[in-house]
Amino acid sequence: MSTPSETKILKQFGATLRAERLKAELSQEALAELADLDRTYVGGVERGERNISVLNIVRLAKALGIPPGNLLKNV
Amino acid sequence: MSTPSETKILKQFGATLRAERLKAELSQEALAELADLDRTYVGGVERGERNISVLNIVRLAKALGIPPGNLLKNV
Repeated sequence: MSTPSETKILKQFGATLRAERLKAELSQEALAELADLDRTYVGGVERGERNISVLNIVRLAKALGIPPGNLLKNV
Repeated sequence: MSTPSETKILKQFGATLRAERLKAELSQEALAELADLDRTYVGGVERGERNISVLNIVRLAKALGIPPGNLLKNV
């Protein structure tokens, strides 16, 4: 169970991921495949339900073709 | 067990964290206390032994007074 401020951070991360995914014109499914992750996991991250790890942040950033730090710009 | 490339990412993250900690002139103990984390956990992250989560990245960045994305600049 995360605290309200932690939930906010996870939701902000998820919103940034979603925005970058849409900018790259990728579906959740396509992004998940590129990052070799499960689609339901990507959906959970975007909804702010997952305390994502640095390795998965790097996977998603590589799949999106952006520096990993960009995914943390709003947290 | 992480792959060689994943180990490399974790070690790069750890090295960046260590450099930022030294720049802030903090011991591992002082940083851990500021971030409300265990000192042995901070040591493990710096050695590249921990697949740190986004919430802990944010905690450490706040304790160091830097944007969280800065901790990912070398991964």
